[in-house]
This record gives sequence, C-alpha cells and structure tokens, in this order.
Amino acid sequence: MLLREGRLGEISDDVLEFISSREADHRIFEADLLVDRAHLIMLREAGLISEEDASSIIQALDDIDENDLGPGEDVHEAIEAYLIAQVGEVGGRMHMGRSRNDEVATCIRLALRGEILDLMEEVLSLIETIWRRGAENRETLSPGFTHTQHAQPTTLAHHLIAHGDALARDLERLVDAYARLNKSPLGSAAFASTGFPIDRRRTCELLGFDGLIENSMDAVSTRDFILEALSALSIQMVTLSRLAEELILWSTTEFAYIEIDDLFASTSSIMPQKKNPDTAELVRAKAGSVLGSLAAALAICKALPLSYNRDLQEVTPHLWRALSWTRGSTRIMDGCMESVRFDVDRLEKSAGAGFSTATELADSLVRSTGIPFRKAHRIVGALAATGDLPGIEDLDRAGEPLGIRPSEMGFGERELEEALDPRRNVERRDQPGGPAPAETSRMLLVREEQLLQYRSRVGEMREKVERALLQLRGISS
Amino acid sequence: MLLREGRLGEISDDVLEFISSREADHRIFEADLLVDRAHLIMLREAGLISEEDASSIIQALDDIDENDLGPGEDVHEAIEAYLIAQVGEVGGRMHMGRSRNDEVATCIRLALRGEILDLMEEVLSLIETIWRRGAENRETLSPGFTHTQHAQPTTLAHHLIAHGDALARDLERLVDAYARLNKSPLGSAAFASTGFPIDRRRTCELLGFDGLIENSMDAVSTRDFILEALSALSIQMVTLSRLAEELILWSTTEFAYIEIDDLFASTSSIMPQKKNPDTAELVRAKAGSVLGSLAAALAICKALPLSYNRDLQEVTPHLWRALSWTRGSTRIMDGCMESVRFDVDRLEKSAGAGFSTATELADSLVRSTGIPFRKAHRIVGALAATGDLPGIEDLDRAGEPLGIRPSEMGFGERELEEALDPRRNVERRDQPGGPAPAETSRMLLVREEQLLQYRSRVGEMREKVERALLQLRGISS
Amino acid sequence: MLLREGRLGEISDDVLEFISSREADHRIFEADLLVDRAHLIMLREAGLISEEDASSIIQALDDIDENDLGPGEDVHEAIEAYLIAQVGEVGGRMHMGRSRNDEVATCIRLALRGEILDLMEEVLSLIETIWRRGAENRETLSPGFTHTQHAQPTTLAHHLIAHGDALARDLERLVDAYARLNKSPLGSAAFASTGFPIDRRRTCELLGFDGLIENSMDAVSTRDFILEALSALSIQMVTLSRLAEELILWSTTEFAYIEIDDLFASTSSIMPQKKNPDTAELVRAKAGSVLGSLAAALAICKALPLSYNRDLQEVTPHLWRALSWTRGSTRIMDGCMESVRFDVDRLEKSAGAGFSTATELADSLVRSTGIPFRKAHRIVGALAATGDLPGIEDLDRAGEPLGIRPSEMGFGERELEEALDPRRNVERRDQPGGPAPAETSRMLLVREEQLLQYRSRVGEMREKVERALLQLRGISS
Amino acid sequence: MLLREGRLGEISDDVLEFISSREADHRIFEADLLVDRAHLIMLREAGLISEEDASSIIQALDDIDENDLGPGEDVHEAIEAYLIAQVGEVGGRMHMGRSRNDEVATCIRLALRGEILDLMEEVLSLIETIWRRGAENRETLSPGFTHTQHAQPTTLAHHLIAHGDALARDLERLVDAYARLNKSPLGSAAFASTGFPIDRRRTCELLGFDGLIENSMDAVSTRDFILEALSALSIQMVTLSRLAEELILWSTTEFAYIEIDDLFASTSSIMPQKKNPDTAELVRAKAGSVLGSLAAALAICKALPLSYNRDLQEVTPHLWRALSWTRGSTRIMDGCMESVRFDVDRLEKSAGAGFSTATELADSLVRSTGIPFRKAHRIVGALAATGDLPGIEDLDRAGEPLGIRPSEMGFGERELEEALDPRRNVERRDQPGGPAPAETSRMLLVREEQLLQYRSRVGEMREKVERALLQLRGISS
Repeated sequence: MLLREGRLGEISDDVLEFISSREADHRIFEADLLVDRAHLIMLREAGLISEEDASSIIQALDDIDENDLGPGEDVHEAIEAYLIAQVGEVGGRMHMGRSRNDEVATCIRLALRGEILDLMEEVLSLIETIWRRGAENRETLSPGFTHTQHAQPTTLAHHLIAHGDALARDLERLVDAYARLNKSPLGSAAFASTGFPIDRRRTCELLGFDGLIENSMDAVSTRDFILEALSALSIQMVTLSRLAEELILWSTTEFAYIEIDDLFASTSSIMPQKKNPDTAELVRAKAGSVLGSLAAALAICKALPLSYNRDLQEVTPHLWRALSWTRGSTRIMDGCMESVRFDVDRLEKSAGAGFSTATELADSLVRSTGIPFRKAHRIVGALAATGDLPGIEDLDRAGEPLGIRPSEMGFGERELEEALDPRRNVERRDQPGGPAPAETSRMLLVREEQLLQYRSRVGEMREKVERALLQLRGISS
Repeated sequence: MLLREGRLGEISDDVLEFISSREADHRIFEADLLVDRAHLIMLREAGLISEEDASSIIQALDDIDENDLGPGEDVHEAIEAYLIAQVGEVGGRMHMGRSRNDEVATCIRLALRGEILDLMEEVLSLIETIWRRGAENRETLSPGFTHTQHAQPTTLAHHLIAHGDALARDLERLVDAYARLNKSPLGSAAFASTGFPIDRRRTCELLGFDGLIENSMDAVSTRDFILEALSALSIQMVTLSRLAEELILWSTTEFAYIEIDDLFASTSSIMPQKKNPDTAELVRAKAGSVLGSLAAALAICKALPLSYNRDLQEVTPHLWRALSWTRGSTRIMDGCMESVRFDVDRLEKSAGAGFSTATELADSLVRSTGIPFRKAHRIVGALAATGDLPGIEDLDRAGEPLGIRPSEMGFGERELEEALDPRRNVERRDQPGGPAPAETSRMLLVREEQLLQYRSRVGEMREKVERALLQLRGISS
Repeated sequence: MLLREGRLGEISDDVLEFISSREADHRIFEADLLVDRAHLIMLREAGLISEEDASSIIQALDDIDENDLGPGEDVHEAIEAYLIAQVGEVGGRMHMGRSRNDEVATCIRLALRGEILDLMEEVLSLIETIWRRGAENRETLSPGFTHTQHAQPTTLAHHLIAHGDALARDLERLVDAYARLNKSPLGSAAFASTGFPIDRRRTCELLGFDGLIENSMDAVSTRDFILEALSALSIQMVTLSRLAEELILWSTTEFAYIEIDDLFASTSSIMPQKKNPDTAELVRAKAGSVLGSLAAALAICKALPLSYNRDLQEVTPHLWRALSWTRGSTRIMDGCMESVRFDVDRLEKSAGAGFSTATELADSLVRSTGIPFRKAHRIVGALAATGDLPGIEDLDRAGEPLGIRPSEMGFGERELEEALDPRRNVERRDQPGGPAPAETSRMLLVREEQLLQYRSRVGEMREKVERALLQLRGISS
Repeated sequence: MLLREGRLGEISDDVLEFISSREADHRIFEADLLVDRAHLIMLREAGLISEEDASSIIQALDDIDENDLGPGEDVHEAIEAYLIAQVGEVGGRMHMGRSRNDEVATCIRLALRGEILDLMEEVLSLIETIWRRGAENRETLSPGFTHTQHAQPTTLAHHLIAHGDALARDLERLVDAYARLNKSPLGSAAFASTGFPIDRRRTCELLGFDGLIENSMDAVSTRDFILEALSALSIQMVTLSRLAEELILWSTTEFAYIEIDDLFASTSSIMPQKKNPDTAELVRAKAGSVLGSLAAALAICKALPLSYNRDLQEVTPHLWRALSWTRGSTRIMDGCMESVRFDVDRLEKSAGAGFSTATELADSLVRSTGIPFRKAHRIVGALAATGDLPGIEDLDRAGEPLGIRPSEMGFGERELEEALDPRRNVERRDQPGGPAPAETSRMLLVREEQLLQYRSRVGEMREKVERALLQLRGISS
C-alpha cells in the first residue's frame, strides 16, 4: 500500500476489505481521471510541474484502464500507484497541492452531476409520456377517489396531469440540488488549503463547475449535497410509488381499469394464468429502499466533528444505490405508462357508480334553491344511505325532516337528471385546475410550453458541462 | 358530530380519539380563521353569498376563541359547528365551493410558511453570531482535525466560517422549499374542483400565496412540500449536530478549548463538580428526532393512491414537532455560540502539537528541493513515527534510504524552522478558502454583504405575506 | 432550580423549556413515586435513614398530586423539591445512594413494563377476534391473491388464520422484550455505584423486577430495551398495516368483499354518499410513524460514549408516542375485525373467477397423465392467455405443440370439471397449513389452546408485578 | 425465459435487469441446492417422483456450478432451466408441489440461519476479548464519564464489563430471533398449499428446521423474520458504535488514553504524521447504514396485502448487506480490542482529575456528620466552583452559610484525604455491579461461566443444523 509505507506497517486482508472503498469507487473512476487531468493542467500552467512531467502523466492517464489498477484502499491511491509504475517517480508529483479529501469530494460531485443530468432527462421523458396519455384522454370519464373510495367523477386527463405536475416539482428539486452540488472543492487539500500557489478557480473552470465551495474546511467536511440529492430522490420515489400503487390497483381483476403491457408484467412459476404487475411492485418497493438510503446517510453524517472523517466514505454507496434505483424506476414507469392500456368503457361506466354525483347534487340544490350547503349535504347524505340513485320524490322525502321540498323550490326532474349525469358533472368543473375537458386542454397547452422550457434549461446545464470536459480533454492530450 | 349526522351514526370516544386531529390542529387554528375569512370574502365578491350572511359569519370569526370550540374530529368541523351555533344556519354556507381536503392543505401551507419565515430569521441570526465570533478570532491559531486527530494548524476564524457556510446552504434550501410551499390549493374542493363559480386566484391573492397548486387532484393529494421541508430541517439539524458535537468535545476536561456558558450547561444531582453541556447534547439528539420525522413522513406518503387519504392527517404532526425541535435547536445554538468562551492560549499551544506541521514540512521540501511529493511524504512519514519534532540531521537521516539529503539540497535550518512554525504555516495558506488571516478577513467581508442580501430577501418574503394578511383583516372586519 | 443552586446560576425560560423533560415525564410520574418508596424502604431497612424520617417522607409521597409539583428540569427534581417543601430538610435524604441517572432508567422500565403488559392483552384480544371470525368462515370460499392478482381459491378461515399467526409472533417478540426490560438498574447511582451500603436486590424485589441490570455503568447507559421495544412495535405495526390495507382494499366499490362498520368509518365534508375506511387508513399511516420513532431512537443512541448522556432524554418520548400509536391501532383493529361484515356471496363467486383454478388444473394433469410439471404448466399457461375456462378440446389443442393429448392420457371431462371447481380445489389442499376446511378446523383447535397458554403466561407476568407493587404499598404506608 | 414462454412474450434487457434478483441470489445459491435436494428426496419417498428421475436430478445438482447458470429472473428459474438442459424434461418434475414463493422464503431462512450462527460466534469472540481485557485491568483506575465529562473515578474493568454486558444482550436477541426464523415454509407452494400429497414435516426435518411456519399463506407472505433480524443487527450496531466512538475519542491527542494498533489505523495521503482510527470510524458509520436497511425493509413491508408481492424481493438485499456490515464490524472490533494499548499511567492520573471525587466527598460528609445529602451536595458544589481540591478549612468555609462546620462534626483531615483519594473511592464501591476490584473480579468469574453456556448453546444450534445437512447430503448422493 502506497500510503502506509512510511508510517504504518502491513495491513491484513480482512481489514483492507473492511476499510476499502474500491467497490463503490467504480462509480467515480472516470471522474477521477478528469480531476487528475484538470489538476495537472493547472499545476503546469502555474509552473508547479514541468511540461514534460505533466505530459508524461497525462499520456499515462489517457491509456489507463480500470482493470489494470492494482489493489489499494481506494481508487485514488490505486491510480497514483499505477502512474508511478508507468512513468516513474514523477507520477508522485500529481498529488502536490491536494489531498484525497478534496479529491474524493470533487469526484463525487462530478459523477453525481452527470447522474442527475441523466435523471432529469428521464424524468422529463416520463412527464411527457404521462401528459401525452392525458392529452389522449381529455374526454375519458373516470372515477375519482378519496380514501380509495369513489368520490366524484373526473377525467383521466385530470388524473394524469396530477401525476405529471407532482413529477415536475420533483424535477425542480433536482434543479435546485444541482445548483448547490455543481461546486468545486478541489484545492482545499486535506481541509486546510495549501501553501502551493495553485489556482482553484482554474480547476473549477476546467471541470465545468459553477463555482467554488469556498471554505476549505467546509469543502471536505460537508456531504450536505448528497443528503439533498437523496432527499430529492426520496420525494420523487414517493411520487413514483403512488403512481405504481395505482397501476397495481387498477390492474386487479376487481378494478380492471387498465392492462399493463406484457413487457412490464410477469407470470407465476406455479399459476400459469397469472399476469402480475411486478415492475410496478418493484418501483413501489424501491421507494422504501431510497428512504432507507436517506435515513442511513443522515444518521452517518449526524454529529461528526469537522473536518473529514472516514465515516463519510460510508455515505457515498448509499447515494449510488439510490440513484440506480430511482433512475431505473423512472425509466420503467415511462415504459409502463407509455404502453398501459386504459379500459375506457369500464372507466366511464364506473365514473357514475356509487352515487359519486352526490356532491354535485348537493351543490345543485344549493344553487337552485338557495338553502345552505350544510342542509343540502344532510339531505343528500340521507339519500346516500340507501345506495340507489334518487328520484325527485326521494329528494322531497329526504328534505322533509328539515322542512325542505326541493321540487317546490326550483329543483325539478331536469335539474335532478343533470346533477346525476357524470359527464355534466365534469364539464361544470372548469375552474382552474379542474377536470373539465376545456380546462385540461388549457392546462396541457401550458404544460407543453413548460416542458420545452425545462428541456432547454437542462440542455444548457448539460451543454456547459460537456463543453468544459471536451475542452479539458483537448488541452491535455 | 356535524358531518356524521346524515349518513353514519354515533361514534365512540375511543374511536373519536383515534381519528381526531384536534391536538395537532392547534397549530393551524389561526391559519384556519384566515382561510375562512378569505374564502368568505371571495364568495361575497363572487355573489355566492349575501353581504349580510358574509358579515355575520366574519364577525363571528372575529370573536372566536380557540377554547370555545366544541369537540369534533378536526378544527375545521369544530369551527363550522361553532359558527352555526353563533349565527345560525347561515354558518353552513361557508363551506360552499370547498372541502376539508383543500382547506386543510391550505391551512398547513399557511402555518408552515410562517414557521419557515421565523426559522430563516433564526438561522440568519445564528450565522451572524458564528461569523462574528470568527471575526474576533482571525488571528487565533487552533488545531485543525481530520478523523478527530490533529492534522494541520488552522485558525479559529477558518473553522467558524466553515460552520456558517454550511448554515448558509441550509438557509438556501429553506428559501427553495418556501418557493414551492407558498402556493394555494384552496378551491380544489375534495379533489375534483367545484361547479360553483368561485375565484381561486382571488383567495390565493388574499392569503398572500405566490401562486396556485393548479391541478385540483394534485393540490389535495400531495404532501411533497412537507417532505421537502422535513428534508431541509433534517439536513440543517445535521449541520447543528456537528457543531454541537464539537462543543461537547471541546468542553471536555481533555480538550478544554472552550467553556460553555453556565446558562447553557447543567450540573448533576449527585456530582456537584460537574458542568455538563446538556443543551449541546440535546441539539445533537434532536438531529435524530428530526431524521425520524422525515422517515415517518416518507413512509406514510409512500404508495398512497390519489387523491386524499386519511393517512395524510398523520403526516402533519411530524412536521410540527420537527419544526419545534429545529427552531429550538437553532436558537439554543445561537445563545451557546454567542456566549462560549474560547481558551485562546490552549488552542494556540495545541495548534502546533502532534507534529501537525508535517504536511507543510513535506510541502516545503518539495518546494525547496524539487523532489516529488510522494518522496517528501515518505521522508516526513518516517520522522512522524518517532513523535518528536525533527532537527535537520533527523531529516537527512530519514532521507537516506531514498538517497536524499535535504540539507544539501537547499533545505537548511531556517527552512526547517519556518516549516515547523504553526503561524507561518497558516499564513502561507492564503488560497481562496484558506485559513490565513488575510483570506479569512476577505471571506468575512464578502459574507457580511451576503448576510445583508439574505436578510433583505427574507424580509421581502415576510413583508409580502404580512401585507396580504393585514389587508385581508382590513377587508373583512 | 434545586440542583443548580450550588454550582450554576440562573437559567432562562427558553433554555429551561429546551432542556426540560417535564412534558414526557407525565408518563413516569406514578413509576417515580413507586421507585422513591422502594428506595426509602430499602434505606430504612439498611439503617441508612431513620424510621421517622422515612415515615414522614413516605406519608408525603402518599399525598402527592402531580398538579402540585413546581417547575423543574424533570419530574425527579420536582418531586424532591416538593418533598423538601413538605417535610423539610429531611426530604433531601431520599437521594442518598442513588442518582437521577439510575432513577430515570428505573422509572422508564417500570412504566414501559406496564404498557407492554397492557399491549400484550390487547394483541391477544385481537388475535382471538380474528381467529373467531376465521372459525365462522371455515367453509367460506374466497379469492386468494398474489401480487394483488387472483391466484388460487382459498377460504376466509385460511386467510384470517394467517393474520392471527403473524400477530402471535408479534406477541412473542413482546414477551422476549419483556424478559430483558423488566430488570432493575436502581442503585447504580450516576454510573459508578455508591459507597453507601444500599441493597440493590431488595429494591429490585420490592419493585417486582425479575433481576438486576448488574454493571452500574451499563445500567444507566443503555437504552437497548427501548430500541428492542420499538423494534417489536414497528414489526407489529407492519402486521397491522397489512391487515388495514386489506380492509381498505376489500371495502372499495370494486372489491366490495366487506363492509366496515359505521363506527369505524367516516364520511366526507362535501361528498355525503362517502363511507371512508378512515380508521384503517390511520392504522396504515401509524405504521410509518412508529417506523420513524424507531429510526429516531437508533440515530440518537448511535455513537454515544458511555455512560449517561443527556441525549438519552430525547429517546423516551419516541417510545411513549409509539406505544400510544400501537396500542390505539391494536384496539381499533380489534373493533374493526369484530364488526366487519363479509359479503360471502361475492367472495365465493369471486373465488373461481379469473381462471384461478389453473394451478390445480396443471397439478391434476401431472397427477393423471404423469407428464412433468413444467409441461403441464406450459399447456395451462397457453390456455390462460385466452381468458376463458377451457373445455377438454381446448386442452388437447393446447397440448398439441408438445405432443400431448390429455384426453387420451386419462384426463377426461370429469377430471377437468373437478379441477376447475373452486370448492374441490380447496378441499384437496388439506396439507398442514392448507385452506381445506378440515385443516383450518384442526389449526383453529390448536390455536384455541395456544391462546389459553399465552393468556396464562401474560397473566402470570402481570400478577407477579402487581403482587410486588401491592406489597410495596402495604409496607410503606 | 423459462416461465414466460407459455403466457407472456419476450422481455427487454432493461426490464429484466430491473426485475431480476440474480445479484442478491448469489447469497442463496447454496441454500437453493439444499432445498431442491430435500424436496426431491421427499417427493421420492412420497412416491411422487420415480427413483431414477430423482437420482438423475440429484446427480445434476451435485455437479452444478454457479457460474454455469444461464440468465433468468432469479436463481430458482436458472437452476431449473439448467437441470432441464442437463437431464431433460424430467428436470421439470422437481417443481411439483411447490412454488418459487415458498422456495425463496425457505432459501432466505436457511442462508440467514447460517449467517446468524456465524455472527453469534463472532459476537461471543468479541465479548470474550473485551472481558479478557477487563480481567487484565481490574486494578486500573480510569476516569468515568457522564456527558463526556469527568464524573467519578472508576476502573477500566468496570467500563469494559459494561460493553461486554451490552453485547451479551445483543447476542440474546440473536438467539431469540433464531428461534423464530429457523422454521420451514417449504410446501406452502404459492400460498395456498398444494393438492399433491407432499410431506412438509419431512422436508422440515431434512433441512434441519425446528418446525413449520404452518399457515401456508402466512408462510410465503411474512418477512417478519427479516425485520426482526435487522432490528437485532441495528441494536447491536448501536452497541458497537458506542465502543467505536470511545476508541476514536480516547485515541485523540487530547485524551491519549489508548493507542490503536497500526493494523487498525490508517494514515493520510497528505499528512504523514497522522494515525487515524479509520476502522472505528467505519464501524460507527456502519451503524447508520444498518439503521437505513431496517428503515427500508419496514417501509417496503408496510401495507402490503397478503400474500406474496414482488416488493418482498426488494427486502432481502437489505438483509444481506446489513449482515455483511455487522459481521465485518464485529470482527474488526474484536481485533481492535484485542490489540489496543491502554496508557495506564495516563488513565490513572486522569481518574482523580477534575475534582471527580466530589460525589464521594459529599457521600462521606453524609456518612460522618449525618447531614442530609442535599446539604452535603450543596457544600461540595460550592467548593467545585473554585476548581481546586479543597482543604479542611475550605470545607468549613463552604459549610458556613448552612451553619455546618464538618471539621467539628467528625469529618477531619483523614476523612477528607480518604474521600479525595480515587483508589479509595473505587474500592468503596463494591456494591453489585460496582467498579471495586473485588466486585469486578466476582462479575468476571460469573461471566466466564456465562460465556461457556452461551458457547454451548450456540454450538448445539449449529450442530443440529449441520447434522441434518450432512445427513441430507448423505441420503441424496
């Protein structure tokens, strides 16, 4: 082990395995090469390393293959050992003016940034799919639920826009998290900065960061950007799990409002007739897994004194796992929603079942007769207890205890019929955010524009990063 | 029970206690009165309720006292029952065009908004205190730690700025969360909007919200704003717990770098000589409690189908508790940091102990002799194993196995002395973010400006809200 | 403040509020009086306090009312201050040979013990209810689910026994936790034991504990008994949440297999026809809350050095809240299950729907024709894709690609009919643990006996405790 | 894919990756072979499969290598496909009378059982190490802490026994969990039992289980045994994290009570003098990771309707990870504690520092003069404020405001000296559980016996299992 030589003796295999971060370091290998490269260019530009030394190291970096690395506590040490083996003692100059503490923090931010950009695009794709399915179903009546009970009729478009809107906020949280994470800790060294005249702003620029995590002690100590990313992922997974729950529920024999495409279903090893919503179940479950990653990361970071502690090494794998789970779930739900078949007939039939128009009936009574809402609610509630759709005489009878005869107060057969018609119900609800086809059409138009803006924003973020990295590779080779 | 009358029969006391939200509703009582008032004004302006009816209800709202409310599942029902008792049947008109589902979502957002504004000011005050203590200690040398081991000398200012910077990001997360939570769900009714021609934008404006949570199904279903607030609180509590840990550690007999003021310490019932850092211990612990609140809220929201489910009622108390814990911890840490006494002598003496200047020695060797960093590291590492500060002969002896005699390569007594002097160490580290007094002075100047901007931003947010509510009270009375 | 006088000065109100445990201490007030009493009797018996002094303090303890206590950081201090006010300086003798550290640990264990005993009885009552409903429904066919999809027919008894068995394991975990928590830390003093010749075994016996937490440092430091109790509660709440989920699911309009009694349902403020499963939803949600309590308690206890730290004060309220939630949920589910109405007709009709007899058909094919199971599975799988119940020709056609004609291999019309009959399906599954009425009858008989044993075990535990406390009150008055 | 053929079409790579459990299935591969073998023997004995068919499958099982398996959703399917490829159609007979649902539950229990047995031995070894280090240090005085502040002198043995006792309870929780997990679900099939005349008790016996999870729906639905194992691991990790925290704290330059062996320490990439307690930091961190696993598993299981759901697949990897972390941490702490060097001089010097004998002084005053404890506490508290060890005149002066002159009440120079001597302090505290060498010697003797009993108990558990498996391999080959 490169670093132990001077000070500590040999290490045993089981201790090495226990303290090693090599497995998780796979996720930052590419980032580490970029960080090395940027640091070298800066050292060269600052005259801290000679042209030749820099070139020979960079050339070795160009040729490195992850599989060639020897053992080591972490990838940083393994790369340095590899370089020394390749280019000789000179490889040891690369570590000047930095430490593993700032290096690893930089690598995590860099790799995370890439994953978040990918995730944002995947979320955008899912939102687009959901809203497109909404646009196809602006006229599709469907039962609306509270407490998983039929409540009032709505439209499928209304329901789908709700999921898309929740995801749009999830996306905005990722955007906000990105702004705080795309900052450079590089050059903070172990925590105390360095006496070498390095140029932190230059490495920041070379790596496409948006600015510095300035204070060098803060820069190596904080993992709040991981906690924030994990929070955003957890909340997004809650959104996805709610959608998944509905896919599971709606594809039961009893609900039967949808059919999940075969590609996203499984069968049973013993019950050949089964078609199970396995992908949706796994998305639902993974919301629990991501919650656990967040809880773990918070518990690990709690009460650590400044600055770097080895505990921080244990935080990162939770991040990578949570990212894989969230990104996989996002893509799977995109495919699910793209291909799910809605049973429009059954949905529309169900939309009016269960006296779900009762609210509208009460509202209509108020509007036509001027009685207070609570009285109307009580009359309709009494009717609901019977379970059947009421006739006008039922209504009068229900009003009797309160001294109210709707049929004599402007509420006749026609009013009753209209109130009980689910489609009329829905059309009337054209308030901002309501289910009426006119309103969902308006909302979808606005959201189309919103999607374009999101895409353009994410595109700019990615482009800035990619431009910097392209340039970085250009300078160094 | 007002609502059960029409449809369901009596309820037993234990069931009522189980399903009631009354205890937690105390936190939204004032918000509920404001929401009622705004809704009434809007109804009146829209011609949905007569001037007289509106006035009589508003007058009753003016006089309401929380203690006068009768029993009921929740505060909304209790207020409505109270109003009907006060002004008669007309009180029942207030519920027109809305439901408890949108009402409670609105109340939570409104009350949470106020708490977040207060918390932001408390965080700002704590940041200011920490940075002021930093400004007093720009020249104070102190040991810098990694792995809780002496690593390199630093300055107290450097260390304190790190904590302040972390808190500044915590503040920014609150600002971002605020932007998403200060939105109005009012008028979404049960989830399906309403057929009454209400005006959602008007109640939004009257209540000082920044916009609508537009889709009515989304508006009553989502508690992502609570999850986001809890995430921000959890991350902030991690920051505070790290500061608390250092207060506990630094006030041990062994460290003895600080003395916590008596006001924030406790003694023992049996050991009269004790002075215990109880407040810091409780802050540390409360980071765990807030983590638990977040985990609970995520687990509750996971996999709920749309729209409203009664599960959501169980989310809110976690929010109120976490807010109390976080706000209390923030204020307590402010007092602690304001009054803590630093033992400057001991800190400075300690700053150079433990051969903590070894890194600078290795760096100096590199700079003076041009040997690669890794070699220098190995030479100094060999010296460190002895534990004593090295003389120039020790250095030469340590270099022997590598064929290096520093004293003959431009690294003499004077270079050695300088490298081993903690103050010189620190002064050299004047890179952006470094501990040198010149650099911390610069950072503190920038941060003074930053504080002013934060204050002004939070001030504007508060002012907008207060102006709206003042106006709301003016219109209605 | 009694304790601060000698050493520390005044305390401000907000700091006192922050560090006070008084709100949660309500839960240990009665326990504290018992602990005081036992400690006093032991001191008197050991000759460490005079008869008269002991008597006067005990008399004051007899008369104490929680509302008479003055302010104070915690209830222990408040009681001591009260006693000194009542009986003079002599009240100060009570604290000899103990500390708040061992006192509070003893009080928590004592109060928790009582709650766990109550909870065990509540769980037993729920198990009994569930199994009784099972006994009523031994012949009731019902659909059995995997992945919330119809899988195979089963009986309601089979399904209900499953829930009861899970609860029986939850009960056993409580019993195991009880054995570890009913241990006495009293006499450990601050952590270092005491030089007074007290008698720890005597107070242990007086308070009905089953033994000592012997090592005095361990005794005041550990809260593992709280963590274990919270774990047991969390797992039990998972069991209850699964039952609650089924109540919610089965009472939807779509499933409609059950009707929850009005007492355990709520209606809507705006949708008068609604009957919502609110109690079940809250039970489901409270599983998340208890999970959060456990996560919080673990995070608080993590990484605390020995011995007592003030952080431990923050653990206990999580315990009390989780207990209230779990006990309330258990009682509510008992009432729900007692009163829920099963729609037997609908269940039986559903039991055979969805080609849920496919597995039995495949099994029968194997049994009658001797073909390997995987082949049979594939044939039946091909049939399932059509969705209809197959005739014998369909079967032959499906076997064709595999070269199999069941009708010519001993599998005729009669075999097919039997295989497709849900009741015959169920009757055949009379393996241990299976759904056949004969087997569920056997299981229920065994479980009746098991219930008696559980009750007798819990009864003995309670009796031992109550006998001790009765005696304790007898001696002291 | 074997199972999809009949019913569903092709699957895409990304969906397969998303739903596959293959990575985690590595942990149950060996268990699966055993389960297959036991099931086959039972089928053969029951006459459900011919001798030859059974033999040819068993022979193929003998030769199987994990690397030979083809793709597949899970290891069960991959093994079956492999067998069919090896022995032809006959391989498909193995799945008769069971399903993947009972198979996977059986495999997890079997693999977990083995890991728990290993862990119990590792915990026992750690306990033994800690107690042995205690036995070496019965006379070693050391400072005892509350609130991380010096409180009273104690002995190292006392402190170490506390950690060992906590671990002994952790062990007992594992034993209790083992009793509930070593039960056989095999033969429950998909959840509804089977119509084949299989013999569940026979496979139970063959696999060394202690009994059945009887109800077949419960058997495939529950993962409470995983939740319980994860709870036990979480609580044990809290214990280890507290020990780890003390290793970190005590090895700081400031405390310097111990030196961690080089093998368990690391150095810095930039600060060559550093010796960092990395292993202890990682153990501390892993307590957070295991907490996260538990939170995840609880959240996933919450609110799942019976019986099997695919969500359950997501639970198991959390178990395997948590086991690896806990077992690794246990072994590492064993090595750490074995090799850690205590600085006895420094510990003993520290034991009396900080007026930590104040409690004994107050107690002695009570014993010699008969004044109430609270008065003595106040007098000593006043002395403590000065910070110096008091003389007899200081004592009299401190007593003055209360009208007490100890020197005239039987408390002279000799009594004072004794009270202030840390060794005398400790020797006096010979109550059960106290730090006096006489008492710790007694405790250690008892614990030696206790260790033997634990070892014998765990040995029996392991032996029973191994005997069964040996026999199983004997029958089948």
